[in-house]
Amino acid sequence: MSDAATARRRGRGGGGAARRAERSAVSIETARYIERNIPNFEVLTEEALEIIEANAETVLEEIGVNFVDNPAALDRWREAGADVDGERVRLPKGLARKLCSTAPSQFTQHARNPERNVEIGGRNLVLAPVYGPPFVQDMNGGRRYATMQDFQDFVKLGYMSKWLHHSGGTVCEPTDIPVNKRHLDMLYAHMSLSDKPYMGSVTEPSRAVDSIEMSKILFGDQFVQDNTVMTSLININSPLTFDSIMMGALEHYAAHNQAAIISPFIVGGAMAPVSIAGTLTQVLAEVLAGVAYSQLIRPGAPVIFGAFVTSIDMNSGAPTFGTPEASHITMGAGQLARRLGLPYRSAGSFNGSKLPDAQAGYETANSLNMGLLAGVNFMLHSCGWLEGGLVSSFEKFVMDADQLGALHHFARGVSMDENAQAMDAIREVGPGGHYLGCAHTQANFKSSFWRSDLLDYKPFETWADEGSRDTMALANARVRKLLADYQQPALDPAIDEALRAFVAKRKEEMPDASY
Amino acid sequence: MSDAATARRRGRGGGGAARRAERSAVSIETARYIERNIPNFEVLTEEALEIIEANAETVLEEIGVNFVDNPAALDRWREAGADVDGERVRLPKGLARKLCSTAPSQFTQHARNPERNVEIGGRNLVLAPVYGPPFVQDMNGGRRYATMQDFQDFVKLGYMSKWLHHSGGTVCEPTDIPVNKRHLDMLYAHMSLSDKPYMGSVTEPSRAVDSIEMSKILFGDQFVQDNTVMTSLININSPLTFDSIMMGALEHYAAHNQAAIISPFIVGGAMAPVSIAGTLTQVLAEVLAGVAYSQLIRPGAPVIFGAFVTSIDMNSGAPTFGTPEASHITMGAGQLARRLGLPYRSAGSFNGSKLPDAQAGYETANSLNMGLLAGVNFMLHSCGWLEGGLVSSFEKFVMDADQLGALHHFARGVSMDENAQAMDAIREVGPGGHYLGCAHTQANFKSSFWRSDLLDYKPFETWADEGSRDTMALANARVRKLLADYQQPALDPAIDEALRAFVAKRKEEMPDASY
Repeated sequence: MSDAATARRRGRGGGGAARRAERSAVSIETARYIERNIPNFEVLTEEALEIIEANAETVLEEIGVNFVDNPAALDRWREAGADVDGERVRLPKGLARKLCSTAPSQFTQHARNPERNVEIGGRNLVLAPVYGPPFVQDMNGGRRYATMQDFQDFVKLGYMSKWLHHSGGTVCEPTDIPVNKRHLDMLYAHMSLSDKPYMGSVTEPSRAVDSIEMSKILFGDQFVQDNTVMTSLININSPLTFDSIMMGALEHYAAHNQAAIISPFIVGGAMAPVSIAGTLTQVLAEVLAGVAYSQLIRPGAPVIFGAFVTSIDMNSGAPTFGTPEASHITMGAGQLARRLGLPYRSAGSFNGSKLPDAQAGYETANSLNMGLLAGVNFMLHSCGWLEGGLVSSFEKFVMDADQLGALHHFARGVSMDENAQAMDAIREVGPGGHYLGCAHTQANFKSSFWRSDLLDYKPFETWADEGSRDTMALANARVRKLLADYQQPALDPAIDEALRAFVAKRKEEMPDASY
Repeated sequence: MSDAATARRRGRGGGGAARRAERSAVSIETARYIERNIPNFEVLTEEALEIIEANAETVLEEIGVNFVDNPAALDRWREAGADVDGERVRLPKGLARKLCSTAPSQFTQHARNPERNVEIGGRNLVLAPVYGPPFVQDMNGGRRYATMQDFQDFVKLGYMSKWLHHSGGTVCEPTDIPVNKRHLDMLYAHMSLSDKPYMGSVTEPSRAVDSIEMSKILFGDQFVQDNTVMTSLININSPLTFDSIMMGALEHYAAHNQAAIISPFIVGGAMAPVSIAGTLTQVLAEVLAGVAYSQLIRPGAPVIFGAFVTSIDMNSGAPTFGTPEASHITMGAGQLARRLGLPYRSAGSFNGSKLPDAQAGYETANSLNMGLLAGVNFMLHSCGWLEGGLVSSFEKFVMDADQLGALHHFARGVSMDENAQAMDAIREVGPGGHYLGCAHTQANFKSSFWRSDLLDYKPFETWADEGSRDTMALANARVRKLLADYQQPALDPAIDEALRAFVAKRKEEMPDASY
């Protein structure tokens, strides 16, 4: 038995300290993941889908994909029946789709608090925060390189956000920690400061191994062998290229039955054709190859059809967000994913603004709404994204997290039970009356309408008396309050100790490195 | 022949001044109204629709509607087979729907520039600006009562907005003109400062008559007899009440074959039940009664199924905008309108914010997107709305007008022709390449992606060097530039003179009044 499992068993067996820690925990309300009771929006016709699927097979057979610096992968492909020429892998039509068929259409990602487990796939939508920005921004400190302190603060905000189901991964890059060690601190932050599910490291295959090891400490060896406890982000180097670092991480995760999002990373017009249909063709070809490869590692390994796709401003070369073309691709890729029977990841709080201002609001709302309607199952970047992903914004994190509540309510669909039909209310009030005081309103008003916890609904005069604050200022106050109120969820002290020891040991074993 | 027609004929016949005016006109690019090539989003099931339709018939038969201070309307209803008791009108099941069947499912509203004609109904979407606010706001003058100068400036901005198809009506209330005369100045502004279609006055039946008279001057008597040249907004006093002022205006418009939006005005929880299904039932009952009444006036008169519906914050009583429940209602009412075979009006740039900030952006984008997907045919308030409709914002007007471009592009749907499939591009670029310079990108980049004309796509450093402007500041600069660049569209001087004379005459005939 590993140290991890021993620690866990000791914790579970019940030291008094562990029990006291659990009793003193503040209960944070987290909504259950979204279970849609609304249709998906299908922007592509059946015929369009068939054309794209046929074209993607042609791409895989005639053009193929590159698996770079990865001889073992080439061997696996050769064995599976692909045509391997140098690093180029060409897949006979139907091969990738056949290999993909062993991937599950839905899976459970476990959290250390079982109430926070998420079901990824089906009609569900799991929301996770922004991933990857090297900078942070808030009204207090402006735009600056992110630190581990910022990272911890974002994990705390995520933990306290009712509508966020997932703690995410690299909520910002803690640039004050050496690159080869920061994954350890990041994982420890997710494991100790939150009890929501989290993502593993992918920046080096050994860091995937560390992620699995730390998860074993947190959940126990056997539990991690039997269950999926991480969903990690494997980007494809579009167009059509699979590098050995990302594939190395994928190999470890798939082998351990840990989930991976296999995701083309596309700025349309740069990494894919400047048309919707062309981009979708390439996305599908890339995902088919990547998911097929995951199933060569371990048939049945949980994977997600990913699509990070945005458009480009051809005047400046800047990526653009919340655009109608991005929406088309997000919706079309969702249709392709469902036809493949795979969970789908896309959309997020995307925008290109430098500030959490009106531009950020428009672009983000466009992306969030279209993601909901596209049938996305796992929405990374669902809050906190700013400036094309260069910045994690504290204020925008809480603004977006608030808007995620609206997605939950929209996804409920429309109740048609007798109470909802409200015929008694219409009879009671009649022509010219009002409903504010009627029995039906009194019985239902608390649950009927979604209400923002952040935005301003006050009369103008009150708002002006209180300082004429814009949304950014309201959000700043909320960030300060949440961080001041934060209380750590209980964690078995033995597990905590074992995690700290693992982090310390791994840090000692390596000299600092910047890659 | 009226003075108007004489003037028009003289103008057409071709005075040199008219020809010179037409030649010197600056050509303003206006997009054609949206013709959707995407499906509608149907949030209600067939069963739900049938329940709501059956309940609405029950409401009309058992509860009925009030036609207040309008004995002629009661007579019309009695004759049509309704049960009239005092001012209460109860409609046997099926009667209203039968009467509605003579209303056209689509109609043309003519503009004085025939290139600006709009087709209202079908899969089309016509966009019109904000309507009704007593206040205006901009960065230069803050929030203040609106004046005729503001009104004219909004008409100019609307004329210059590429994605706006319609000049609208009361783009703000010109509070410096007496209430009983301002409609004359407003109509003259729409007729002279823009060549897009416009709305008529509804605040008093005689003002509808003035609107028709002025339209006859602009278009010619016969043209107005034969064609629809105005679409005007007839609000229902929800719940279930039709007042004599609005009905008086409707009677004039319908009798002259001019279009009317027949629109419940509902803050859910106050003027309708606090549930989606209950609100939709009431909306349908009200529209059925209102449209049926229009057809009693003149079978075949063009009308639009309207739904202005938002939710309420039960903590403060404030109306809330861009909420998921408002989206449900907008989408559900669209389904009901299509089943009735009527054009549909709903949605807009709704928000409750005091500033064009992130809140305004989120809420507005929610409303605009859901309106597009709901199948709305006529979207009043599509730009400029702020603070729950109390304020017309100059900056937000141009921000929203820019976003309307995204709606146009989304509505195009996805091209699947050979060029869009881009297989040659994927072959040309191959794994690891990039598409920026490839032939397909060069041939297509200009038309492929929607691009904002307003929002910031610059690198952070450039943006910071230029003053770190937020969206409001960028929009303010755009408002100033547009107003500085504005050039009046050519108008036959004889018609212009006749319009001015009519306005002067009508103003002379009445003492100023504040109602």
